[in-house]
Amino acid sequence: AAHGARKMEGYGRFLGLLASALLAGFVSVIFSLVWVFQYREGLSWDGSAREFNWHPVLIVTGFVFIQGIAIIVYRLPWTWKCSKLLMKFIHAGLNTIAMILAIVSMVAVFEYHNASNIPNMYSLHSWIGLTAVIFYSLQLFLGFAVFLLPFAPVPLRAALMPIHVYSGLTIFATVIATALMGITEKLIFSLKNGAYSASPPEATFVNCLGLLLVIFGGLILWMASRPHWKRPPEENAKALRPIGGTSEGTEAESTMTDGSNADKSDLRISSEAARKQNLKLDEAGQRSTM
Amino acid sequence: AAHGARKMEGYGRFLGLLASALLAGFVSVIFSLVWVFQYREGLSWDGSAREFNWHPVLIVTGFVFIQGIAIIVYRLPWTWKCSKLLMKFIHAGLNTIAMILAIVSMVAVFEYHNASNIPNMYSLHSWIGLTAVIFYSLQLFLGFAVFLLPFAPVPLRAALMPIHVYSGLTIFATVIATALMGITEKLIFSLKNGAYSASPPEATFVNCLGLLLVIFGGLILWMASRPHWKRPPEENAKALRPIGGTSEGTEAESTMTDGSNADKSDLRISSEAARKQNLKLDEAGQRSTM
Repeated sequence: AAHGARKMEGYGRFLGLLASALLAGFVSVIFSLVWVFQYREGLSWDGSAREFNWHPVLIVTGFVFIQGIAIIVYRLPWTWKCSKLLMKFIHAGLNTIAMILAIVSMVAVFEYHNASNIPNMYSLHSWIGLTAVIFYSLQLFLGFAVFLLPFAPVPLRAALMPIHVYSGLTIFATVIATALMGITEKLIFSLKNGAYSASPPEATFVNCLGLLLVIFGGLILWMASRPHWKRPPEENAKALRPIGGTSEGTEAESTMTDGSNADKSDLRISSEAARKQNLKLDEAGQRSTM
Repeated sequence: AAHGARKMEGYGRFLGLLASALLAGFVSVIFSLVWVFQYREGLSWDGSAREFNWHPVLIVTGFVFIQGIAIIVYRLPWTWKCSKLLMKFIHAGLNTIAMILAIVSMVAVFEYHNASNIPNMYSLHSWIGLTAVIFYSLQLFLGFAVFLLPFAPVPLRAALMPIHVYSGLTIFATVIATALMGITEKLIFSLKNGAYSASPPEATFVNCLGLLLVIFGGLILWMASRPHWKRPPEENAKALRPIGGTSEGTEAESTMTDGSNADKSDLRISSEAARKQNLKLDEAGQRSTM
């Protein structure tokens, strides 16, 4: 409520890209479902190949699509009037859902492998995939401890934010790369006797799923890395709030929402120099992009 | 020569990361050679599987290692005293070498496939790999036309630079993802009868090559995306040069080296506002990072 409707630079272009990303992500999910239902006997949880089929569906839905949305959730201009804390909960919540789906999807593979006497963890896909899940969990845990809980000091937040952003985008890209390896493996294994090279409809269809994942990833990374599409800082509105002005609850809801501002909330900033310093710290700590 | 030895922020950390990246890249090249010589009958150009072997070697050497170096070449602080034009030539030259090696490595695969009656362009690896080579060539051509040749107007350079940076980093990441798919394919195809899942030494060794490529990519993307490791702008030194001062040939050598400054080189900038505007344009046009 503090700063109302701030105009975004290139709003139309942002909306177009967002619509394209949502479309690519949504169609990817549909494609993963068509793949397993049309070509691969559907889904079940019984140790069969149909249990394995949960793996691509949950990875595409959770670890790619939902993670991608979690990454750009701060960029949505209509959320800029929501408190930063609420947006942090949404960001953390979406990432938690993505992590749970990724773990369930791994359990499906392990159970299928064990039921069929197929070794686990031998392929490059499995090595990099498991590494990505471990780093993703660490990232979620650290993000929760440092940016959501109200205990971490501001300089620590400022120091870790660029690492958080870099790790997030790199893990996201690595997850997509791992999905492409998984598609490659699965098509070679399930289209027997070199049938992949004969380009049957399933091969062409699932190759298109791979392309869609790359397009989705490219769109998300573009939106996430445009500095002028970042959520605007809330410093100005608060730092310059008149003494005794209503705080409208945003600070009470927040856990150090604004990083640099939180531990001087009862300190009135008057000089231009101090305000600039404040913005600079905010720049480093809260709005870093790659 | 204009601004001499400017101190880099976190110089030691940069050197450590650079050494790690060079090591990971160099060891990757060695691993690709050990792979083909130790496990896959070496190299030749005769349509056999040994001609195919040029593919992983040239991709790792050129399209991953050399492209990675080309990306961070502006970041090397000991090059900051070189003219921007020279650095652009090095950047373009390394990328040209990488492109040639990538194309030769593709020819090796096509010739091998044709000699062995294996279809071309059926796999997701081939689809995304060819797309990456096409985009890389476009990127190189556009980069040459816009940033190296002296004809493009400054606003065009400023508008295209963020796209150039984003495309470059995204293509680089896509190339690594494609290499991981290629490793997956090749291990499944060449270790017959499901031997990949038995984790023979070759499988473990080549999986490690895949991990090294991811580490190399992660280090390059980190170095390329730290704003404080960017080559410093050259505006100040020139814009504030006294009237009649020696230009030491840097401008003569350059093709609009500094973007915003070039077409007002005979205009003496005196007001603080103009200098700021100048720096801002430079920021947008020449030093953009993701």
